[in-house]
Amino acid sequence: MGERNLTLLTDFYELTMMQGYFKNKSNETVIFDAFYRSNPSGNGYAVCAGLEQMIDYIKNLHFDQDDIKYLREQKIFDEDFLEYLSTFRFTGDIYAIPEGTVVFPMEPLVKVIAPIMEAQLVETAILTIINHQSLIATKAARVAYAAKGDGVMEFGLRRAQGPDAGTLGARAAVIGGCIGTSNVLAAKLYDIPPLGTHAHSWIMSFEDELTAFRHYANLYPENTTLLVDTYDTLRSGVPNAIKVFSELKEAGKMPKKYGIRLDSGDLAYLSKKAKKLLDAAGFTDAIITASSDLDEYLIDSLKTQGAAINSWGVGTNLITSKDCPAFGGVYKLAAIEKDGIFIPKIKLSENTWKITNPGNKTIYRIYDKESGKIKADLIALIDEEFSEENSLMIFDPIETWKKTYLRPGSYTLREILVPIFLNGECVYESPKVMDIRAYCQKELDTLWDETRRLVNPHKVYVDLSKKLWTIKNELLDSINEFYHTSK
Amino acid sequence: MGERNLTLLTDFYELTMMQGYFKNKSNETVIFDAFYRSNPSGNGYAVCAGLEQMIDYIKNLHFDQDDIKYLREQKIFDEDFLEYLSTFRFTGDIYAIPEGTVVFPMEPLVKVIAPIMEAQLVETAILTIINHQSLIATKAARVAYAAKGDGVMEFGLRRAQGPDAGTLGARAAVIGGCIGTSNVLAAKLYDIPPLGTHAHSWIMSFEDELTAFRHYANLYPENTTLLVDTYDTLRSGVPNAIKVFSELKEAGKMPKKYGIRLDSGDLAYLSKKAKKLLDAAGFTDAIITASSDLDEYLIDSLKTQGAAINSWGVGTNLITSKDCPAFGGVYKLAAIEKDGIFIPKIKLSENTWKITNPGNKTIYRIYDKESGKIKADLIALIDEEFSEENSLMIFDPIETWKKTYLRPGSYTLREILVPIFLNGECVYESPKVMDIRAYCQKELDTLWDETRRLVNPHKVYVDLSKKLWTIKNELLDSINEFYHTSK
Repeated sequence: MGERNLTLLTDFYELTMMQGYFKNKSNETVIFDAFYRSNPSGNGYAVCAGLEQMIDYIKNLHFDQDDIKYLREQKIFDEDFLEYLSTFRFTGDIYAIPEGTVVFPMEPLVKVIAPIMEAQLVETAILTIINHQSLIATKAARVAYAAKGDGVMEFGLRRAQGPDAGTLGARAAVIGGCIGTSNVLAAKLYDIPPLGTHAHSWIMSFEDELTAFRHYANLYPENTTLLVDTYDTLRSGVPNAIKVFSELKEAGKMPKKYGIRLDSGDLAYLSKKAKKLLDAAGFTDAIITASSDLDEYLIDSLKTQGAAINSWGVGTNLITSKDCPAFGGVYKLAAIEKDGIFIPKIKLSENTWKITNPGNKTIYRIYDKESGKIKADLIALIDEEFSEENSLMIFDPIETWKKTYLRPGSYTLREILVPIFLNGECVYESPKVMDIRAYCQKELDTLWDETRRLVNPHKVYVDLSKKLWTIKNELLDSINEFYHTSK
Repeated sequence: MGERNLTLLTDFYELTMMQGYFKNKSNETVIFDAFYRSNPSGNGYAVCAGLEQMIDYIKNLHFDQDDIKYLREQKIFDEDFLEYLSTFRFTGDIYAIPEGTVVFPMEPLVKVIAPIMEAQLVETAILTIINHQSLIATKAARVAYAAKGDGVMEFGLRRAQGPDAGTLGARAAVIGGCIGTSNVLAAKLYDIPPLGTHAHSWIMSFEDELTAFRHYANLYPENTTLLVDTYDTLRSGVPNAIKVFSELKEAGKMPKKYGIRLDSGDLAYLSKKAKKLLDAAGFTDAIITASSDLDEYLIDSLKTQGAAINSWGVGTNLITSKDCPAFGGVYKLAAIEKDGIFIPKIKLSENTWKITNPGNKTIYRIYDKESGKIKADLIALIDEEFSEENSLMIFDPIETWKKTYLRPGSYTLREILVPIFLNGECVYESPKVMDIRAYCQKELDTLWDETRRLVNPHKVYVDLSKKLWTIKNELLDSINEFYHTSK
């Protein structure tokens, strides 16, 4: 999927602005930060994802002749600019937080340092890619959390917002915690397990349910999961499934993995009743899978009710992140280079939390040394130095009286923004998706339980260094003075 | 985008079931219906879309050597089946409702008549494609309705669920009523107008706002829309815009189209204040565009408040259909051919409205002859004949005492399912997107105002013919008897 030419996957205004910069011969190096302002679904964190596809996009950036022809036809682009576009390549630096890392609002997930024409063009696609996959990875982490260690299968392709949403969404869902996907294309492209059994139509295509079950069990002796709700779950589906399992047992052909799938009705009631029937017949290790408009809240509720379900297929609500289908990542100018120095830039807003953080920044993650859990993130300027040997004072950037002092040796620091492109060359190799998934599981372990809970999670603080905070406030003052006093 | 090989864009169980049918040598011709059960966003109708991409998908269906290799590696598919797949093509018939048509719950948007192996494989991708685009087209129709004739621009790419969602979503948004999109790739692929102006970063890259405005106006003299909220809308942005417009006027270079864009703050208040300032300076025909987390309800409210906005840019909430991000289309077996006759099939459910409609069906749209408005849709079996010359009795399929008698000459009939593929050959040519958009506008005119309103719309009835209703009820009785009496 990454080989398509997505160069025109950009907002039209990126191109009109690019021509503006071109005409004004103002192609200074600038810094843009991609960050988001609040966690989706009321979560306490997000899981960032999409970096591999962002890298593919940047590597493939080029306007082919057909693109140039199309732009010419719009009659607002001049030939000198189109000529420039025809040899356009990305030549800048990109830093990003590796996929599968837990992240928090206001910190740059991606930092682009490039001539303004290049940095402007890539805004839209970077946001599209990172926003989408981070959204689904975060949702998957929530769903997997609710399932308390049971396997969660991604089953949403048919309700996804188009082929990419289904396929890249499955990738992100696995990064966030799913064990595999029903989507065969995603499974192939990203080397993740393809999963699934059969549908109601399988049952309906045979003269009766029992015959359909027998045929299926005969065909897939390694893993026999039978869908039991086509006609009547407890009066037909489960008894027929038990009949087939008994026949297999008698014939000495018991499948390694076997069980039933419930796809409708009251899952708490039906699963408990089905479990009783299976247990009574001696099939105590049958897997009971549920898959009916599930989300993290329903799974949590079913767990609380003691439902006898130990495998979950989650579709629509995961693949669309239904309760919060957009990750609000933005891409904001943070600095412009003049005479070799980055001049910090800021965007004002009437909402304090919407004001951007200026300058060339990085992010240090501060861990509690004893527990290994995250204490806070610290956004600082890249020329600042921090050492675990020193004590560290951090403070809330808005309620500045909220201060925390960290003693030397009580904490560890880790810089989480890493180089991806330097001078247009990719210097980063994306791990395999299943390895990103394993990394993400470790990342989730660095969160306190109170931050992982589904409702009203404890907030992780993202603080600014004293130096960054000071520059930001000086900039705010000077702009206020210019626009509100001098006129 | 349609040229990618999407053959593996399917659920894994479609392939395991296919092998099951293959092994049982049961490749009877079957009928599957793709339909949905309730309109998204509480709407009174849906706008169907995605047919062109569905056609591309069916035309391109083939397993290439790499796909076969991947499936072989899963170690559950036998060589004879893989051999069959390697020459697989779609050979069946497909009927569908043309894109841009208004549609209602329970009626087949797509009907597939094909050997069961083929019909089963295509389930997932058909649903993915039709569900996504119908969702966004419907949302766009709602947003355009709220805008009461003002232009609505699709601005959502950066928040879309991946590249396809942004690009196919823009296509669907235009079908449903948007005048164009900011997404350049979508604009190029589907020949729809690319739209947009400049961002905050344009302003911030200059020494001050006025200089940035001057440069922009100079560069794009045909259409100068200035974003006025970077620093302070009423104290800086609007006065600077007026200054630039005045300079252009004095120089005899007034743009044909010009105006301002508001992207934050209280849009009702700011637009009215801005309009006063513009009017006072003589710029009474300035276009005032708004674009800040808009949706149909906000636009409706701004209209009610008398906001001075006459152009709308709608992003996140449209491209994700945020309040309802999935269109619940399903694909259900309706009949199986035995000895040349289609035997109707039905899926039971404890929910009456979830029970499927059996048989080989078509849909007649019944219009009131005088007004041209839709009276009801009638799902019937294909061998039934109806004539506008006869009186017609229609009745609610659940509350059967609700009957309507239509006099001869008082109504017209139109069959809305049309042939798309016959014996695997495509017999349908998709119109251009802007033509589908024009057709959709006419389609929307066939709805009563009460059905178009945003909240609690009047329901359009979808009735069953007497013959279909009778077959359905007989099937229900016989299955109930088999599963609940005989055991």
